[in-house]
Amino acid sequence: MSTGPNSKGETSDMASKTVTVVGLGSMGYGMAQSLLRAGHSVFGIDINPAPVARLAAEGGRIAPLAEAVAASDIVVLVVLNAAQTESVLFGPEGCAPALRAGAAVIACATVPPAFSREMEARAASLGLAYLDAPISGGALRAAKGELSIMASGSQEAFDGAAPALDAMAANVFDLGRAAGAGSAMKAVNQLLAGIHIAAMGEAMAFAASQGLDLARVVEVITRSAGNSWMFENRAPHVVDADYAPRSAINIWPKDLDIVTAIAAGAHLPVPIAETALAQFRAAAAAGDGMLDDAAVVKVYARAAGLKLPGEA
Amino acid sequence: MSTGPNSKGETSDMASKTVTVVGLGSMGYGMAQSLLRAGHSVFGIDINPAPVARLAAEGGRIAPLAEAVAASDIVVLVVLNAAQTESVLFGPEGCAPALRAGAAVIACATVPPAFSREMEARAASLGLAYLDAPISGGALRAAKGELSIMASGSQEAFDGAAPALDAMAANVFDLGRAAGAGSAMKAVNQLLAGIHIAAMGEAMAFAASQGLDLARVVEVITRSAGNSWMFENRAPHVVDADYAPRSAINIWPKDLDIVTAIAAGAHLPVPIAETALAQFRAAAAAGDGMLDDAAVVKVYARAAGLKLPGEA
Repeated sequence: MSTGPNSKGETSDMASKTVTVVGLGSMGYGMAQSLLRAGHSVFGIDINPAPVARLAAEGGRIAPLAEAVAASDIVVLVVLNAAQTESVLFGPEGCAPALRAGAAVIACATVPPAFSREMEARAASLGLAYLDAPISGGALRAAKGELSIMASGSQEAFDGAAPALDAMAANVFDLGRAAGAGSAMKAVNQLLAGIHIAAMGEAMAFAASQGLDLARVVEVITRSAGNSWMFENRAPHVVDADYAPRSAINIWPKDLDIVTAIAAGAHLPVPIAETALAQFRAAAAAGDGMLDDAAVVKVYARAAGLKLPGEA
Repeated sequence: MSTGPNSKGETSDMASKTVTVVGLGSMGYGMAQSLLRAGHSVFGIDINPAPVARLAAEGGRIAPLAEAVAASDIVVLVVLNAAQTESVLFGPEGCAPALRAGAAVIACATVPPAFSREMEARAASLGLAYLDAPISGGALRAAKGELSIMASGSQEAFDGAAPALDAMAANVFDLGRAAGAGSAMKAVNQLLAGIHIAAMGEAMAFAASQGLDLARVVEVITRSAGNSWMFENRAPHVVDADYAPRSAINIWPKDLDIVTAIAAGAHLPVPIAETALAQFRAAAAAGDGMLDDAAVVKVYARAAGLKLPGEA
C-alpha cells in the first residue's frame, strides 16, 4: 500500500485529497498532522475545541462534521470504541448520509470483527467504502506517520483509503478483501500485548520479592528468551517509577473485554487473557486507571507488601 | 567473564583445565563439546552410556564419577533439578567428598534460590567454590559455546569457574557475590518465558478461531507490539505443525512449579504464571508432554474444536 520511495514529510505523488479526521486524541492528532505534512487538506473534528484550534493553527480546517465530510474524499475515525464508531457514522448526528458516494471510511478503533462486518455492510448500502483498519504504534509514531495498520476491506476501500494510509502508516498489513480480518488481527495483537504487560508486572514484582536489582533484571531479560516487546518497552517505567501515561491502564479492560467476548463467541477458553484482564481491572479499581499501564505492577506489589522503585 | 577477543573454537589463553560434566543430555553434551573445543580435558558422566561413549569418540575421557572429579579443577552439573543436584554432590554416591579443596562446582539446573544458598554453604564447608549458574539458550547454542548463564557466587567461585564459563557461554550475567541471585534471575526468565509460550498458544488458537491465516499472523505479530522472543521462536512450529521437541512441554510444569513455589514463599500471587502452568499440565495430561512446548496450542484447539495446521 506504499506509494514507493517517497519519504514521509514530502508531498506524495498521489493527488492531494480532502480528509476529515474524527477524534483528535493523542493518536488522531498525530495522524492529522501526518496527513497535513503529506499535502492533504485536513478537517479536524473533536468534541474538545482545543485540539481542533491547535490543528487549525498548523494548517488544518474547521467545519461542522456534516459539512466537513461532505467535502471529503476520506474520513478517518480515530474514536474510542464500537459505540463511538457507530454513533459518528450512523447515530442521530451521524455523518454517513452526508458523505458522498464512493468516499472511503477508515475505521481505526479496536472493535469486534462482527461489528466491522456490520459497519461495512451498512456503509456499502450508502455507497461508502469501509476499511476495517485498527492501528498500532502509539502517539509518537502516529505523529511521524509511522503507524502499523491492520487493514481489511474491499479493493475499492483500499484504493480510496490509500493516500491517507500512505501518509499515516509505515506498515499497512493487508489482511484481505473483507472487513473483520483487520479487527481480528488487532485482537490477536491486543491479547498478546495485554498478557505481556501484565506478565511484565508479575515478573518485576517477583524479581523484587527475591531482592534482585530491577535495572539489572531489565538488562538480563531483554537479552534472554523471556523478553517481549512489551517487557522491553514497559519494564523501564517500573525501574524509573515513571507512570506518566503513554498508554493507560484503562485501555486494557476495554480491549481485553473485546478479546474475551470474541473468544466466548468462538467457544474458546482464553484463561491467560482473562487472568491478565483481572489484573488490569484490579489496577483500575485501585484508582490507577489513568496511570501508564506499567502500573499493573502495583497490583502485585500491594498484594505482597513489596516496595517498588520510587516508594518510600 | 570473557577472556577477550578469542573466538570460540580456538584454544583459550587460559590454561587448559580438567573438567567433569555430569549430565550429557542435549544441553550438557553440547557444553562438554564446547569445553573440548576450548582445549580442556573433559570427563563425561551420564547414567546412559551412549553419550559417554560418543563424547569419548570426540576426545572426551571416561572414568567413574569419584575418580573423574578427583582429577578435576571444575565440575559442571547439567542435571534436571534440585534433587539430582543434591544427590550428585551429597547423596550416598555423591562426589563432593572426592573433589579437591578449591575446586569449582558450576550448578546449572533451574532450582529455588534458597536451595542454591544451601548448596553453597554445604560446598563451602568442604572447601568447594559453588557457582549458582542456571543456563539459557537451548541445545544448539550449548553446542556452539554460546549459552547465556545467570551466575552468582563468591569471587573464588567465579575465578575457578571462569575457564569453563568462557568455553560454554556467550553471555555470563554476573548477579553478585552470593548464590541465590542466579537462580532467582533464572526463575524470572522462566516465569516470563513460560507465560509467553502459553500465550502464544492462546493467541494462535484465537487467530484460528477467527479464520485468520496463521502464517500471516506470525508475519504481522512479529512486526507488532504483541511480539515476544518466544512467540517469534515457537509460533512457526504451530504453522508448520512441527512438534519435534526442541524444548518439551514437560519442562514447564517443572520450572513453573519452582516459580510458583518461590512466589508462595514470598506471599506474592502470580496468577498469570499459575494459569500458564495449568495449561502446560493440561497438555501433559493429554499425553503431549514429550512434544515441543509449542504443542500447548493443542490444549486450546481441543477445547474449542478447532483444526490446527497439519490436522485433517
